[in-house]
Amino acid sequence: MIIAVIGSSEANQELVKLATKVGYELAQNGVMIVCGGLGGVMTAVCKGAKQAGGVTIGILPGNDPLSANEFVDIPICTGIGYARNVIVVKTGLSVIAVGGAYGTLSEIGHALGDNIPVIGLRTWNFDQENLDNELFTVTQSPSEAVNLAIQAAVKRDKLNQSIK
Amino acid sequence: MIIAVIGSSEANQELVKLATKVGYELAQNGVMIVCGGLGGVMTAVCKGAKQAGGVTIGILPGNDPLSANEFVDIPICTGIGYARNVIVVKTGLSVIAVGGAYGTLSEIGHALGDNIPVIGLRTWNFDQENLDNELFTVTQSPSEAVNLAIQAAVKRDKLNQSIK
Amino acid sequence: MIIAVIGSSEANQELVKLATKVGYELAQNGVMIVCGGLGGVMTAVCKGAKQAGGVTIGILPGNDPLSANEFVDIPICTGIGYARNVIVVKTGLSVIAVGGAYGTLSEIGHALGDNIPVIGLRTWNFDQENLDNELFTVTQSPSEAVNLAIQAAVKRDKLNQSIK
Amino acid sequence: MIIAVIGSSEANQELVKLATKVGYELAQNGVMIVCGGLGGVMTAVCKGAKQAGGVTIGILPGNDPLSANEFVDIPICTGIGYARNVIVVKTGLSVIAVGGAYGTLSEIGHALGDNIPVIGLRTWNFDQENLDNELFTVTQSPSEAVNLAIQAAVKRDKLNQSIK
Repeated sequence: MIIAVIGSSEANQELVKLATKVGYELAQNGVMIVCGGLGGVMTAVCKGAKQAGGVTIGILPGNDPLSANEFVDIPICTGIGYARNVIVVKTGLSVIAVGGAYGTLSEIGHALGDNIPVIGLRTWNFDQENLDNELFTVTQSPSEAVNLAIQAAVKRDKLNQSIK
Repeated sequence: MIIAVIGSSEANQELVKLATKVGYELAQNGVMIVCGGLGGVMTAVCKGAKQAGGVTIGILPGNDPLSANEFVDIPICTGIGYARNVIVVKTGLSVIAVGGAYGTLSEIGHALGDNIPVIGLRTWNFDQENLDNELFTVTQSPSEAVNLAIQAAVKRDKLNQSIK
Repeated sequence: MIIAVIGSSEANQELVKLATKVGYELAQNGVMIVCGGLGGVMTAVCKGAKQAGGVTIGILPGNDPLSANEFVDIPICTGIGYARNVIVVKTGLSVIAVGGAYGTLSEIGHALGDNIPVIGLRTWNFDQENLDNELFTVTQSPSEAVNLAIQAAVKRDKLNQSIK
Repeated sequence: MIIAVIGSSEANQELVKLATKVGYELAQNGVMIVCGGLGGVMTAVCKGAKQAGGVTIGILPGNDPLSANEFVDIPICTGIGYARNVIVVKTGLSVIAVGGAYGTLSEIGHALGDNIPVIGLRTWNFDQENLDNELFTVTQSPSEAVNLAIQAAVKRDKLNQSIK
């Protein structure tokens, strides 16, 4: 099972701590992590996952596998720039958003537009009227985010299996 | 000069009226319109532009030029699905968002991430802390949105010219 | 009606002459041209089209409309690098290949894979066994290429209309 | 180290045998395989790799991880259709082409255009004049193809490291 973790390439200490914990707990549950493969939240989540012996996938905007952070096991070179954000979220059965700037905003939009559940942790707040609260959930801790993301991923996997 | 207009493929009468007026006024100012080429706000803005003799470009998710709405002059068939949202906003010198669902949210994220000014009209509201208020402006009428979008586009065009 | 013209960004005088003639004759027949928007064959075909009062569309790999050659009327900024080659061929109802290097090879592959007819003029030769000769036709002159491309485009347009 | 294997989604018994052997030998050498994740040559190469305990990555055109063949460990859902061909070749340090139809042709073009070495096995033949024979090599057996692909990948990896 693969879950996406998204967030800004620049992260303060609080976000780094949260993202590292998210990565650690996902890996402890046997979940592979897909992210954008670069710095900030992306480095932190991959580092956490590797500390728990997990597997990490980085969907890179450019052509160079060495542009990935050092904790990425599988660098995917897309060469399509920030359109790669679409691939990050589609590759996860669910998405955890930790902090985040404009790139994260685009990823949340792409995920929700594709009916992929997004679990937020210190990330964007939206005008609630437009939002499906089943699809976008705000959490307060890494453990809560990981639990909800795994639940959502299991549910979506079962749905996919049943359609197939 | 090309300006992007984004918004939901399903639009109520109020949004249709606003988007049609936006298209009309952009075309009156000699501005070409790029949009996603499909229904709702996209059809309305193209219809408005054609009523004022403008030129309309539709960046389609699929392969079939006939999937474009009837007011699109130039259908671009991308075949890359909703990753085409990136191309819609990059092709505009500025962006006007009228209403909008999750696809529009992804487009606002991509635009802001690329430093492309976004002018909002009955669209998403965000947690202001994360937002650059010079880059994302909320307006109350089609005329105000069109004026600000043209000002922003002229400014960005001058910047591009000076870099070149 | 839009027809794609593909070919190398570096072109010798013979190819420039051929591509200019292709652009001129397409525009004389009221056909809009889509190409990659950059140099060599792309500049030549746009120049020819403008001499006959045509309309030219450039699908750019990057973000800057000013990177288009001076004969492009409508610059589409994709930001997806050479993956934009897919969009160039999909946007045409048929494709003319004038000369060409590796990028052109990828475009011929994408076009044929999508059942889009390709008309070649001094371009790649292939092992005939793998090729559908109805889909890939070799011609000897710009006029022959333009005539065949328009015939193929008309046929495909009728097919699209009938499916719709 | 990741090497890409490309080839048609429909393959006769000879190609299946060749591709399975390619996958087996790459995995024996500790190389991860990236491919398009679907049928024919793609299934065969993944099956061979798994028989030798390797790791397989499938870059899918669509949104559904269950569309991958059963031997794919890591399904990447791109949602960008056949533009995903670009990502398949960019993710490999070198490319092996086994048989192949039009999609493979596009992938060879994208690889060569990016200076990624391609090793051919029963694949397209080209007009030699346009081709760099250092970049595109024809081989006669899976072992020869695998050896050359690994040599080329090691060389390219060293180059990337030195640039970094």
